[in-house]
Amino acid sequence: MLGLALAACASAPRAGAGGDPAPAIQRVLEDQVAAWNRGDLEAFMDGYWRSPDLVFTSGGNVQRGWQTTLDRYRASYGSSPETMGRLAFSDLEVHPLGDGAAWALGRWGLDNDGKKMGGVFSLVFRAVDGRWLIVHDHTSLSP
Amino acid sequence: MLGLALAACASAPRAGAGGDPAPAIQRVLEDQVAAWNRGDLEAFMDGYWRSPDLVFTSGGNVQRGWQTTLDRYRASYGSSPETMGRLAFSDLEVHPLGDGAAWALGRWGLDNDGKKMGGVFSLVFRAVDGRWLIVHDHTSLSP
Repeated sequence: MLGLALAACASAPRAGAGGDPAPAIQRVLEDQVAAWNRGDLEAFMDGYWRSPDLVFTSGGNVQRGWQTTLDRYRASYGSSPETMGRLAFSDLEVHPLGDGAAWALGRWGLDNDGKKMGGVFSLVFRAVDGRWLIVHDHTSLSP
Repeated sequence: MLGLALAACASAPRAGAGGDPAPAIQRVLEDQVAAWNRGDLEAFMDGYWRSPDLVFTSGGNVQRGWQTTLDRYRASYGSSPETMGRLAFSDLEVHPLGDGAAWALGRWGLDNDGKKMGGVFSLVFRAVDGRWLIVHDHTSLSP
């Protein structure tokens, strides 16, 4: 078992060390969806760069900084599965931008007790200390 | 005069050759605004990567390809200053992503004979054949 675990670790390249970033970036987003759907907003925010320079924009507003983004999510959605609703991402595509960066596009949908909304997100990822993190998020709502 | 022209050429670094991409990217956007405001949609589109892999998203729709994006602009805005209105960009910020890529954020406003609208845009730039070009545009409308 230990052997298997080590083999798994050895096969997971550090972010930014070359190779296709898509599987690692897809995992970041899958982890975010799982965290959202169990009502764990802090774990959801783990996918974002923990920096005052994170930039999040939605609905014509621009938020700057990891903490501000977390506070805004909490104010809008609360911090339990009941208030946060059920999140899903689809149609993810990842476009590498050299070794240490990538951008991604996808669709999001949120079902909050039957009230459904959704739209498109664009993300800019950077490899920071061996992890792929969202440094910019532009989320928009479909009319 | 020829000497001056050569000096100007020598001082303009190729995109992606290192250095701060912000001035060159700002110039791409200034050229786009000038082209839009004289009703020259083809010149406006010069700022975009002339590729089927260009991705433009707005209002929940995703367009793929330079030609499709041009066609959509033409269908929505026509191709004269009267139908296209007066475009302005503001609050531009450019974030380098290594030598050959950058992302940018800004606000757009369009005044069409007194009917005003605006919002936020996020752009991904890549250095292609020595020029900074938009490879992805996520434009959203403020409510």
